[in-house]
Amino acid sequence: MITVLGHLNPDTDTTCSAIAYAWFLQQRGEEAEAVVPGNLNKETQFVLEQCGAQTPRRISSLEKGASIALVDTNNPEELVDGWQEAEILSIVDHHKLVGGLSTAIPIYIVMKPVACTATIIYELMRQEGIKPNETIAGLMLAAILSDTLKFTSPTTTQPDRMAAAELAEIAGLDTDQLADGMFTAKSDLSGAGPRDILMMDSKIFNLGNEKLRISVVETTNPSSALVLREQLEQALAELKEEEQLTGALCFVVDIINSAAEAIVPSAYEKQLVERAFNIQFSDATAHLPGVVSRKKQIVPQLEAHLTA
Amino acid sequence: MITVLGHLNPDTDTTCSAIAYAWFLQQRGEEAEAVVPGNLNKETQFVLEQCGAQTPRRISSLEKGASIALVDTNNPEELVDGWQEAEILSIVDHHKLVGGLSTAIPIYIVMKPVACTATIIYELMRQEGIKPNETIAGLMLAAILSDTLKFTSPTTTQPDRMAAAELAEIAGLDTDQLADGMFTAKSDLSGAGPRDILMMDSKIFNLGNEKLRISVVETTNPSSALVLREQLEQALAELKEEEQLTGALCFVVDIINSAAEAIVPSAYEKQLVERAFNIQFSDATAHLPGVVSRKKQIVPQLEAHLTA
Repeated sequence: MITVLGHLNPDTDTTCSAIAYAWFLQQRGEEAEAVVPGNLNKETQFVLEQCGAQTPRRISSLEKGASIALVDTNNPEELVDGWQEAEILSIVDHHKLVGGLSTAIPIYIVMKPVACTATIIYELMRQEGIKPNETIAGLMLAAILSDTLKFTSPTTTQPDRMAAAELAEIAGLDTDQLADGMFTAKSDLSGAGPRDILMMDSKIFNLGNEKLRISVVETTNPSSALVLREQLEQALAELKEEEQLTGALCFVVDIINSAAEAIVPSAYEKQLVERAFNIQFSDATAHLPGVVSRKKQIVPQLEAHLTA
Repeated sequence: MITVLGHLNPDTDTTCSAIAYAWFLQQRGEEAEAVVPGNLNKETQFVLEQCGAQTPRRISSLEKGASIALVDTNNPEELVDGWQEAEILSIVDHHKLVGGLSTAIPIYIVMKPVACTATIIYELMRQEGIKPNETIAGLMLAAILSDTLKFTSPTTTQPDRMAAAELAEIAGLDTDQLADGMFTAKSDLSGAGPRDILMMDSKIFNLGNEKLRISVVETTNPSSALVLREQLEQALAELKEEEQLTGALCFVVDIINSAAEAIVPSAYEKQLVERAFNIQFSDATAHLPGVVSRKKQIVPQLEAHLTA
């Protein structure tokens, strides 16, 4: 049995790509199961329901002797407990090569600079003449819409657009309608405390000599997050202390208007954002027009400033 | 300009795959040049001549600011000087994931558990509907014949066989005749001293707590190497001393009869080979029937013994 999984703090791409890749392996005669290493966010829950897909089994660690297929990550720091004892059979990913994983024997690896892992998985299916069913096509389409913010993120590539167009056709889904539903679900912060909101989509980066946690809150309704600014600042300060970080930042991304609002816990991060993006904080937040992507915009800008 | 290259101590696969991948990039509208980081062995020289291909430019280090496409390696210890300052654009390889390379941004990577990098490159050409010309097809066929010892090595996979059959057709070459010529060229040890012979195909492995240099001499005429046994033993002892190795071993692989003869410089390596392969040295060498592959047979056997 091959266990297919993505990164901790699972998002729509990691979850849908795990399901799609497990299905792909099954079509090729393998026994495979998609699992998720964490709770699903509201967007992903909406997508699974919308496409009529079952929620993958949630795991908190891998079983001893597990054989795993990784999707949407090649970063050992993002893997669930027990990965060191597992045999990695394959990696399908679209992130930079982190360099922390090694294997005892040659394995199958494909990584491409596209916005979404599901785009690569769909290309693999095409190469082998395997046509996804409606459910699998819908899940992959949703993953692409999620990672590209419906093609508005600068991470979007031509292969992502082409895959999405074909998958929408196969799934019989209206792309705009699906994206609207996803982004509304994603924007629902009800029931989430400030720490939950920060951890929905959050990663730690070592940039220059600094260790920064960068959280992103993608939403169609920025004010629902911005009204919680003081609690979010407090939660950022607590995370910074607990995790011994140099800094902690939260970017509330307005999906509709393609812009971000930065929330910071101290003068250090304020100065960092002002210098890296060459802007001024007005009142307690900073408005960053056009900024929607952590990978392509936020991290490179901060890194350029910190390593200059 | 993209510089395409493989590992130090270039062999037929690394050289032919570099030429083929550079050609593939050119077909896609890129400027690309294959280079070789070292002198070519006699087999590779024969192949280039036979296929009417130019010898790639030899480099001893990369230029500052080079953009590189790696083939046939993902191991930083096997890369030519200057790679740390180069931008890695892509990796196409068939070795285990070593884990030492990282990149600043997502790149294109494909690794597959097949015998030969050229097999993967041919698959990439097929996927994009690019048909190699006769020269490029001949080079890729030769790479496959070299890495599979004409399909007799246990590393051989179905994709290697399929690619070779199609490439032979395109190149208009007789596979047996090409392989015969290659193996005869490879077996010509004239003009090579014992150290040269050991370094023709040689790698260092860290197995358990041991650091071993394992040289392989693939030949159709084992006696031409075996008559040099005493000089080879002496050269192994010198390498061991100079490189502070735990052990140094040479395996003379009889391509025709699929067997290897082990040559060792001291009682330590003798015991190691006897225990790992469960055989006895007769006189000064040990006969290992069926053993032809360092990757699939020699290293795994030694490793199993040393880490037991």
